Amino acid sequence: MKQQLNSLQDYMISENIDVVYLDNPNAVAYFTNFESNPHERIVAYIVTQKDHFLFVPALEKEEAKSQSNVENIYTYNDEENPWKIIAKETSKLVNEINFFCIDETTLTVERYNKLSQAFLDTQQPDHTISSEDIGSIIDQMRVVKTSNEIDKMMAAGELADEALQIGIDSLVEGITEQEVAAIIDMEMKKRGVSEMSFSTLVLFGDHAANPHGNPGDRKLKQNEFALFDLGVIYNGYASDATRTIAFGEVNEKEKEVYEIVLEAQRTAQEAVKPGMRAGDLDQIARKVIEDAGYGEYFNHRLGHGIGKTAHEFPSIHGSNETILEPGMCFSIEPGIYIPGEVGVRVEDCVYVTEDGCEPFTLMDKELYTLVK
Amino acid sequence: MKQQLNSLQDYMISENIDVVYLDNPNAVAYFTNFESNPHERIVAYIVTQKDHFLFVPALEKEEAKSQSNVENIYTYNDEENPWKIIAKETSKLVNEINFFCIDETTLTVERYNKLSQAFLDTQQPDHTISSEDIGSIIDQMRVVKTSNEIDKMMAAGELADEALQIGIDSLVEGITEQEVAAIIDMEMKKRGVSEMSFSTLVLFGDHAANPHGNPGDRKLKQNEFALFDLGVIYNGYASDATRTIAFGEVNEKEKEVYEIVLEAQRTAQEAVKPGMRAGDLDQIARKVIEDAGYGEYFNHRLGHGIGKTAHEFPSIHGSNETILEPGMCFSIEPGIYIPGEVGVRVEDCVYVTEDGCEPFTLMDKELYTLVK
Repeated sequence: MKQQLNSLQDYMISENIDVVYLDNPNAVAYFTNFESNPHERIVAYIVTQKDHFLFVPALEKEEAKSQSNVENIYTYNDEENPWKIIAKETSKLVNEINFFCIDETTLTVERYNKLSQAFLDTQQPDHTISSEDIGSIIDQMRVVKTSNEIDKMMAAGELADEALQIGIDSLVEGITEQEVAAIIDMEMKKRGVSEMSFSTLVLFGDHAANPHGNPGDRKLKQNEFALFDLGVIYNGYASDATRTIAFGEVNEKEKEVYEIVLEAQRTAQEAVKPGMRAGDLDQIARKVIEDAGYGEYFNHRLGHGIGKTAHEFPSIHGSNETILEPGMCFSIEPGIYIPGEVGVRVEDCVYVTEDGCEPFTLMDKELYTLVK
Repeated sequence: MKQQLNSLQDYMISENIDVVYLDNPNAVAYFTNFESNPHERIVAYIVTQKDHFLFVPALEKEEAKSQSNVENIYTYNDEENPWKIIAKETSKLVNEINFFCIDETTLTVERYNKLSQAFLDTQQPDHTISSEDIGSIIDQMRVVKTSNEIDKMMAAGELADEALQIGIDSLVEGITEQEVAAIIDMEMKKRGVSEMSFSTLVLFGDHAANPHGNPGDRKLKQNEFALFDLGVIYNGYASDATRTIAFGEVNEKEKEVYEIVLEAQRTAQEAVKPGMRAGDLDQIARKVIEDAGYGEYFNHRLGHGIGKTAHEFPSIHGSNETILEPGMCFSIEPGIYIPGEVGVRVEDCVYVTEDGCEPFTLMDKELYTLVK
């Protein structure tokens, strides 16, 4: 993706960075379109101020070629030393390697040591090389999505809507949380989804009030809530949505809790505007819940960024000073969790537009009562 | 687990290592029994020559306490600096930190830098500290499983047998590979399996001959092979097994290929003995296939180690000099893959005993023909 590469190279020139080395699969795919899952092997993207290349295991060359937009692709076999090849090809593009950058939050110490040594070996004796982190800069770049990325996230959102409907349709008295989660995952697989964004969450009744709740043996009873929190990875992009529905008639307090959560969610979603502080959005939703007297039961941040994974920047918590810009994508997911009693959360992920935001998931949010 | 801790501390004393820091969830669970999935948060196990402690996010303290066998558990909140706490508690146990070890293959550069700095900050000005990798030593320790670990792996193997049967039972003309994989995963979820060892592989006919094959839209036809390669993670331990069965009548060549693969698999499994070279096992199986004229179509190593994950040491490839010992666990999985024509693999994982080996999966390996 040309635009992303240009931004990175502009930054490299301004900071005198000779080389950027990236091997986190999400970062590689972000810049090259090549989605990979190399495990212990190496798929890396190397950028210099004027050039760039992909480095992949020999077995993956054809796939890298057909998926990526990078002209130069170098490869290695299991018997070869990948670091030597990377350093050799890099040194052809750079007069002298003095300063390189890596993503320190994902690169392992072993790889860093091998890469540094290989770079050093291409230079004159006594040459020294320094390095720094560039992960946070790349995270910043990735915060604002292109229209192409947003299209992919819309497709992932559409599947999340479908998954929620499948979950709701599968509800019947006595079914366990685990069974419903398994049905959702299976139906998504049938639709070509190879991976969920995270482990599908299905929680019934008061179990949804447990912040560490995982789908278990608990059976669905009449007249309680069922909470679904799920998403898919599709074409390399994630979706994430939560709905809570009533299976039979819930009581007045439960209805009240639902309406407050929904109001908080809608109020925040309608308040999104470019130019506002991310933290203010959290406070807007929190105020609705606090004013209704349930503040202590909304014990997490309002939301998280989303993109190639379900947890990216920006974090939507009260003290985040990030200014929202068109193209930023994040979840808006207030909840009220009263231990041993009731748990409700409503969540859509949205992208910021020129004058507001648009959600990736469209399923209705009014309290839905399923009678079976 | 006392035995593991003692081995590590003996090694630390012999090498003058003051501190070992581990935060890879599998290594932490190996030493402490505490299974965690901390994502960006930190769950770490810190060992000194005479002491040890667990370090976990405050939210996970109760779980860590109930699961683990470690007396001292220290915690941190999201607002606290975890490295300061780790360094402070460590410095109480060690007079002077001169030399510490980490797992370089899993620790990130960012964490390494923060940990080193925090250790330094607890020492006198101008003090220097060196560090080295201990990952390969711990991998070596983990190669030999205790009887308690083998019991857990037997339970995971039993579920893999069940999963294979579920896959076979679901076969019907026209069903897709993806659908069968989804049914298997769903049924395992219902049995309380939260995670498969790896993405369940179901491949039909010549698709099984593609080394990069993933379950897709391909529909099952009469008179072809169906290959299942799968496993579960259960109680923190993995299983992995492959069976290839005939859906309807396969032709003579396909039957021949099957019988050769089966003979290779059985010959190797019967040859396992403590004291032999791992590499010889690969050669024994390979010889059967080569003698039958299909050597070029067996294009991968015989097997891989297994334990807390489906890919550990020892690797069973021809040049591995590792001497097999009782308690080592690995797969024996020869295959023949003739592109565009047929793919067959048969796999059991085994543990080495005093005079041979025992498999974790027991499903029959004779060619099974399913007529439907």
